Amino acid sequence: MTQDTRQNFASDNYAGACPEAMHWLAQANASGHEPAYGEDRWTQRSTDMLRRLFDIDCDVYFVFNGTAANSLALASLCQSYHSVICSPVAHIETDECGGPEFFSNGSKLLVGESTSDAARLGKLTPDAIGSLVTKRHDIHYPRPKVVSITQATEMGTVYSVEEVRAIAWTAQKHHLKLHMDGARFANAVAHLGCSPADITWKAGVDVLCFGGTKNGLPIGEAVVFFDRKMSEDFAWRVKQAGQLASKMRFISAPWVGLLENDVWLRNAAHANAMAQRLYQGMCALPGVQPTHAPQANGVFAQLPPAAVQALHTRGWKFYQFIAGGGCRFMCAWDTQPESVDALLADMRDVLA
Amino acid sequence: MTQDTRQNFASDNYAGACPEAMHWLAQANASGHEPAYGEDRWTQRSTDMLRRLFDIDCDVYFVFNGTAANSLALASLCQSYHSVICSPVAHIETDECGGPEFFSNGSKLLVGESTSDAARLGKLTPDAIGSLVTKRHDIHYPRPKVVSITQATEMGTVYSVEEVRAIAWTAQKHHLKLHMDGARFANAVAHLGCSPADITWKAGVDVLCFGGTKNGLPIGEAVVFFDRKMSEDFAWRVKQAGQLASKMRFISAPWVGLLENDVWLRNAAHANAMAQRLYQGMCALPGVQPTHAPQANGVFAQLPPAAVQALHTRGWKFYQFIAGGGCRFMCAWDTQPESVDALLADMRDVLA
Amino acid sequence: MTQDTRQNFASDNYAGACPEAMHWLAQANASGHEPAYGEDRWTQRSTDMLRRLFDIDCDVYFVFNGTAANSLALASLCQSYHSVICSPVAHIETDECGGPEFFSNGSKLLVGESTSDAARLGKLTPDAIGSLVTKRHDIHYPRPKVVSITQATEMGTVYSVEEVRAIAWTAQKHHLKLHMDGARFANAVAHLGCSPADITWKAGVDVLCFGGTKNGLPIGEAVVFFDRKMSEDFAWRVKQAGQLASKMRFISAPWVGLLENDVWLRNAAHANAMAQRLYQGMCALPGVQPTHAPQANGVFAQLPPAAVQALHTRGWKFYQFIAGGGCRFMCAWDTQPESVDALLADMRDVLA
Amino acid sequence: MTQDTRQNFASDNYAGACPEAMHWLAQANASGHEPAYGEDRWTQRSTDMLRRLFDIDCDVYFVFNGTAANSLALASLCQSYHSVICSPVAHIETDECGGPEFFSNGSKLLVGESTSDAARLGKLTPDAIGSLVTKRHDIHYPRPKVVSITQATEMGTVYSVEEVRAIAWTAQKHHLKLHMDGARFANAVAHLGCSPADITWKAGVDVLCFGGTKNGLPIGEAVVFFDRKMSEDFAWRVKQAGQLASKMRFISAPWVGLLENDVWLRNAAHANAMAQRLYQGMCALPGVQPTHAPQANGVFAQLPPAAVQALHTRGWKFYQFIAGGGCRFMCAWDTQPESVDALLADMRDVLA
Repeated sequence: MTQDTRQNFASDNYAGACPEAMHWLAQANASGHEPAYGEDRWTQRSTDMLRRLFDIDCDVYFVFNGTAANSLALASLCQSYHSVICSPVAHIETDECGGPEFFSNGSKLLVGESTSDAARLGKLTPDAIGSLVTKRHDIHYPRPKVVSITQATEMGTVYSVEEVRAIAWTAQKHHLKLHMDGARFANAVAHLGCSPADITWKAGVDVLCFGGTKNGLPIGEAVVFFDRKMSEDFAWRVKQAGQLASKMRFISAPWVGLLENDVWLRNAAHANAMAQRLYQGMCALPGVQPTHAPQANGVFAQLPPAAVQALHTRGWKFYQFIAGGGCRFMCAWDTQPESVDALLADMRDVLA
Repeated sequence: MTQDTRQNFASDNYAGACPEAMHWLAQANASGHEPAYGEDRWTQRSTDMLRRLFDIDCDVYFVFNGTAANSLALASLCQSYHSVICSPVAHIETDECGGPEFFSNGSKLLVGESTSDAARLGKLTPDAIGSLVTKRHDIHYPRPKVVSITQATEMGTVYSVEEVRAIAWTAQKHHLKLHMDGARFANAVAHLGCSPADITWKAGVDVLCFGGTKNGLPIGEAVVFFDRKMSEDFAWRVKQAGQLASKMRFISAPWVGLLENDVWLRNAAHANAMAQRLYQGMCALPGVQPTHAPQANGVFAQLPPAAVQALHTRGWKFYQFIAGGGCRFMCAWDTQPESVDALLADMRDVLA
Repeated sequence: MTQDTRQNFASDNYAGACPEAMHWLAQANASGHEPAYGEDRWTQRSTDMLRRLFDIDCDVYFVFNGTAANSLALASLCQSYHSVICSPVAHIETDECGGPEFFSNGSKLLVGESTSDAARLGKLTPDAIGSLVTKRHDIHYPRPKVVSITQATEMGTVYSVEEVRAIAWTAQKHHLKLHMDGARFANAVAHLGCSPADITWKAGVDVLCFGGTKNGLPIGEAVVFFDRKMSEDFAWRVKQAGQLASKMRFISAPWVGLLENDVWLRNAAHANAMAQRLYQGMCALPGVQPTHAPQANGVFAQLPPAAVQALHTRGWKFYQFIAGGGCRFMCAWDTQPESVDALLADMRDVLA
Repeated sequence: MTQDTRQNFASDNYAGACPEAMHWLAQANASGHEPAYGEDRWTQRSTDMLRRLFDIDCDVYFVFNGTAANSLALASLCQSYHSVICSPVAHIETDECGGPEFFSNGSKLLVGESTSDAARLGKLTPDAIGSLVTKRHDIHYPRPKVVSITQATEMGTVYSVEEVRAIAWTAQKHHLKLHMDGARFANAVAHLGCSPADITWKAGVDVLCFGGTKNGLPIGEAVVFFDRKMSEDFAWRVKQAGQLASKMRFISAPWVGLLENDVWLRNAAHANAMAQRLYQGMCALPGVQPTHAPQANGVFAQLPPAAVQALHTRGWKFYQFIAGGGCRFMCAWDTQPESVDALLADMRDVLA
């Protein structure tokens, strides 16, 4: 393992694939020829596993990445002249390079202004949604059709089951569909300790983009429609949009590795635990001010600019999002406690 | 190896990944953490290898599949109110579910009517192009901006260097760009015995979609711009369109396996040889009428409907495209001579 | 009246606006301020008149031109990964510069191959539709969702009520919607002598684009949804697509002029009669071979190239569509019998 | 004149067409047949008049409305993965129902945060632009390519020549094009007293959408490209997007009426003067707090909610944009001083 690995807290997608995913990828290859485009046995198997996991006969589509998963899911829930309500820090708003607008041919994202507490935690609130929906009804304004929440959020926090239910209730009241960007869905479930069903369809979520890449896959996300009526002709949409793998098994088989023996949950719980370890350590460091307690696998904190600089100089990788020292430290499925401790030690050093 | 493998001539994408690709995929994972989105060492390495292969400082983008590679390349060469000239059997016209029209937001594909000989071989001719370009100049007709040819063609034939040059000359005369759908580019080069540069940029090709999947990769194609001026901001296009892998190394590292030691060429040459073996065998079978001699890895032939039915019953997989017994038999990088011989034996049987 | 007017048979949209349309346009202006975006009295009035005309509580949208009317209607009936079945000479296929593909973000037009007789008359047949729908069901092919027919056709012919019914029956059998491009709908009704309801919703048409411009309006077409469930949120679609006139009354008021006292039908009947007069005259001319008897307002005929040239030299305007002398002569709501006779006289001259 | 007319301050597009526009519309009809699609004499004439007005050989396209003018102009300046910088109150952001995103297939609008003073006046500042452009350079964020300013602004203010120059300078520094939404361009020029060239291309504007509708046309806007290199193939874009009028003269001829004898400027100056008259009167009314002095044809003011309600009850039409009594009063080319005075009298009454 190189120095890079030990010193990365920049993103959980810097991590590689977990052994279980790699095992099944190799297995899928060993079988020789397999029908293409998802007619293979691994796609069937992982789809069935997801159905069991969610305890419902859901419709599952494996796509290549999160931009596509979210954009295609949103496009299937609205038309170009509709709009999608999300938080100001929603990944679909800030980091998809206009992907949702492209796939939907123009649906506008409407940023909900939550109370300062919720906003600080990266969460959308029922009030913020209600306010956007009732603000205007004229045809010069794209009609809201979808609410999108990120679970776990971009700020490393997690919506409780009650919070999701309250959002879903508001959405339903206004005839909006509820989409969950689950790039770190596993981290959220690991934190909540609930069943995947509880925090999704039982709480009112219509479509989940279940992130596999950050959870230990080499490549791939799953779009899960809990109500099959909403996924009519979605296979054609996926094909046209360049998201149908010809050798699909290489996307779907690694999912078997994640889902078997709850590896997905173990990977996520580990990443979450590393974030906790880092957070606890940072709380004890004068000069470091964590923004809030992490619930998933990311720690957000204020550090003095000189300390940030010094840490970068020592080789530590992490992102600065806010002027004046706001930093994000992401832990992955394979982050080692030793790396966390070494980071904390260096922090102590540079702050001394 | 299961029966499936031995009996598949349906598509070259039923094949798995070749050992060399799998080796580098595993290697890429072994390195632990790597920067995401293509900032990793494998992406750099395979890109450099492609530049050496094509003997030019080209701009290379790795995307997930052929639909996306072709659609994004075409979209970058024209606007929605332009059109793309292709053959009636072009994959972009018949099998992308409107992908090119989707990514370009409406560019129309204009099907060129080649002479019957060229049409039979799946080729577009300079005359067909010229005829479409000069037919109309009014604004009610989407202005042609691109010519797209498939190399090797969908009919298992290969454009000679002279043919590509003639097409490029016609394209340039009419201010059209030349796109090459190279889903089976390796098979074409293996047949021609020329250098990749000779049949692409030296012959006037502007953009090549170099197919990796059918050549032995698990997933992935490369979009190669020979003129960097044409690829301005293409990275943003790829990102927005959901084709930027976060863990890019899992797409790019297997390319190292293909490119090192000319595995790509060996894989293709093997598939071509299997097609020749099948074709030669079929020529000796009364009742089987090959449409034309294969130059790449697919054999097209007329068989009596009863024979087709009998072969399917015996477990042989292949596609029928034309009413009355027109069949396609595809060979892959891993097709075994024994499989070819077994198919020929069964053909003889069912025709007896 | 200038020479231009008398000698134009190029297109029925070279004609101006009829007096009745201009009268109401002026009236609408005389009222001073009016609410914008269709909340005015003229929009209400012309909409109600259309409802009475079609004898059903239809949903009506006034848009600026035929490209937009057809494209928006089609886009509302399908998604980008669906397809629209039409004839090879359909205006949406040949003369909208990819408008339908643009507004739908990529829906492909599938050209139906009718029997030679129907093809010659510019008609789509149930068999051609059935053949396209049943040809493929795989996801690599955009799923047919809509049939579009042009009434009157681009070849100056008219579908009978029975023919439309048969097409609608086929469409329904395959779960396709039926769109009617009625750029010359008035000419078709004038020919058939039936009620507008008989040839539209009673025959199975879902959406009609009722052409006003060629019928005597300065600007404007009406999109008529006979089933209001299909027009959900269509007002938003129209707005986003730049087709909502702020001073809507200037589009809608002239419709009052067309609809009052059946001016629309009188205008169309006159144009049709002029076409008949021209056709009858041409039948008597040796050297002129009308392709088929006109049913609407266009005459198609073969003339010797030298004669075509000579007529153009004499100032006559008309289009040549086919190599070797295939010509189209269009009559408008204001074409004068004297113009027809003068054209016939010149034809006789140049053929002598 | 009905009560409606006298009491409308809701929007300047409630007004009808001015006599000069109607005159030329009628003239254009009187000529009988004219070539379609802009090949007519009126289109040529009004285009030439615009070239003289702007003192440059610009490229002019007449389209139906402002949504289309702005959206098509912006789409021609960027690709789907680019972004457009505008103010938070820009019409393209708040009132086009996602039109710019639709026509560009996904270009994101980035809202610039100007200083509170500029923001209050509805203006974008060079600093706000610079801040957005330099904020991020990564491919997860749509690359800024265009700055769009509205002249006059949505808050009834006008950018000075120096302000436009400063914005253009910033735009050029960052390789951005400058688009001017001139729905009320005439009002701005009337206020500034400069030449149209001074405030557009000489100040660095690349494309102007010159609003005709609010200035006294029945229908229509002009897209003016000052640099012809930027308008390559724009005619095809217009056609595909459903913005090419077949009987174009009915759009272009009324422009002759506006441009001849500077009617456009007189109309605008009158509307501006009515706004001044209203503003002066309101300043003398205790209880009414104008937000800022108007420079164009709209007055913005705070009124007590009860007064707003009472005015509405008396039949006065105007929009409330902000909770607590923020109101907008728009004057048109035909607003009468008597109407202004009657409104002021009623204000005094209800505030008493």
